Amino acid sequence: MVDKRSEMGREHWRSMTAAARANPEQTPEDVVARVERYWPGLTAEPGGVDYLEVEVAGCPAMWTVPKGSAEDPVLVWVYGGGWVSGSIYTHRKLLGHLAKRVGARALIVGYRQAPYPVPLEDTTAAYRWLLGQGIAPGRIAIGGDSFGANLAVGTVLRARELELPVPAGLLLMSPWVDMTVGNETYESNREREAFFYREVVEMLASAYLNGADPKDPLASPVYADLSGLPPTYIQVGGDETLLGEALQLDENARAAGVDSRVEVFPGQLHTFQMAAGNVPESDEAIRKLAAWVRPRLGLS
Amino acid sequence: MVDKRSEMGREHWRSMTAAARANPEQTPEDVVARVERYWPGLTAEPGGVDYLEVEVAGCPAMWTVPKGSAEDPVLVWVYGGGWVSGSIYTHRKLLGHLAKRVGARALIVGYRQAPYPVPLEDTTAAYRWLLGQGIAPGRIAIGGDSFGANLAVGTVLRARELELPVPAGLLLMSPWVDMTVGNETYESNREREAFFYREVVEMLASAYLNGADPKDPLASPVYADLSGLPPTYIQVGGDETLLGEALQLDENARAAGVDSRVEVFPGQLHTFQMAAGNVPESDEAIRKLAAWVRPRLGLS
Repeated sequence: MVDKRSEMGREHWRSMTAAARANPEQTPEDVVARVERYWPGLTAEPGGVDYLEVEVAGCPAMWTVPKGSAEDPVLVWVYGGGWVSGSIYTHRKLLGHLAKRVGARALIVGYRQAPYPVPLEDTTAAYRWLLGQGIAPGRIAIGGDSFGANLAVGTVLRARELELPVPAGLLLMSPWVDMTVGNETYESNREREAFFYREVVEMLASAYLNGADPKDPLASPVYADLSGLPPTYIQVGGDETLLGEALQLDENARAAGVDSRVEVFPGQLHTFQMAAGNVPESDEAIRKLAAWVRPRLGLS
Repeated sequence: MVDKRSEMGREHWRSMTAAARANPEQTPEDVVARVERYWPGLTAEPGGVDYLEVEVAGCPAMWTVPKGSAEDPVLVWVYGGGWVSGSIYTHRKLLGHLAKRVGARALIVGYRQAPYPVPLEDTTAAYRWLLGQGIAPGRIAIGGDSFGANLAVGTVLRARELELPVPAGLLLMSPWVDMTVGNETYESNREREAFFYREVVEMLASAYLNGADPKDPLASPVYADLSGLPPTYIQVGGDETLLGEALQLDENARAAGVDSRVEVFPGQLHTFQMAAGNVPESDEAIRKLAAWVRPRLGLS
């Protein structure tokens, strides 16, 4: 139970770790079920948003439609969850907050929970589907959190390879973009972290790669040629083990000529924006994402 | 953290009680915030349902629309929460499950969180609004859980007084319908209960009545003349302190010539149906509600 609201996110991840340690015989399915039950509880209901389920490219997807928003532009969102958890439902309210702030519809796209490159195939197909709906690429931004940020970058890289137009912007929360799990912040932030310890992330990475090279640029975008990416805005918590790869991604993007920026939120943990509507720091991050993306989507 | 799924509901209420006892200086707002954060986590996402917010009679309301359902009939639902908590959001998934099973849209109606008779005025206005939309009363059922069941019965009683047509059926989960808080099951089920102890319910009742007579028939439908109610189906947990008043309501309804039945679910607690999609007993109760109401709504 949480008494100090600003600590909600940290308490959530701490309690997930405590539960895992208290139940050493649990199955991975138990861990996933627990995350999926409690993670959405961090986010307050935004209110004034409709939620419409659709199937996109064979996967579950959800339109989050703020009252009074236009058909166009569209923010595409790829949810995180370490490729083994997360759904259109865990991120429903988060995208409700963000879509309201942006003043546009968001499309949360799902993907099969399967090793590389299956999820990336699904999100690329979803992006192609959206273009086929007649939405101009200049009116589309793509975003994602954690593993979803990996897929968001990968989708743009794949679009470039397939000679599809790239979207107008890329929004990334706590991107998990290095399957070598080698960044120094796994150590330097270990004491401040609450769940995503190196050994946890290594287990997820190894199963996702399923034998693929951890430096495959479409599995680990920090090793990709990032030239041609659209303007990119990365948010990351200062206390998270994934801090280092977010900084690295930004550095590599800028070196490749991309209009990229990263913002570190001191004292925050992985995907702290999930506490939107409950925690001021989360709301401020959402506000900044919206302010950054609106002009890129042609909204004044 | 819950390892045995069938105990989810009991563990939820136990943890609410434990948190309240561990924080004796907490405000009522803290208790409400905790219930609203964790209560919806009992319910699995039904899937295949759209959620559309609307304002009805000046209050928040939500259409839950199963894929492929017709415009008509409509299940109106009044959520519970002791009149101080609960919302269109806490009950979104529960109604998604029920609406899917019924094969019809549900309209979750909100009401002001104010003492008697304000909430009843709001739900009565919502029913009148729905009739004004051209939905025939024979194609409307009204349901509610806990305090919402009180308002569901009260709305029909008020409709009768106002010479409005009554709906085709009444569905009640764990109805809280006796503001005297005097039923013997407050004692006989005290050891099996996990949250709704007499002293808790007395506090809620006293604040709701705000000086009104606890036997006012529109505050406490067990003291009302129930003749003219539509067919009524009541579900209640065998272990809950509110068991007695559910049985009393059914007995009074039958004595007044109403086609009423009550079903006691052994070993279950208050509003155990909230664990729909996670707990077999909850799903079975939802299935029975749907099977009961479908023919009354003209669905085969």
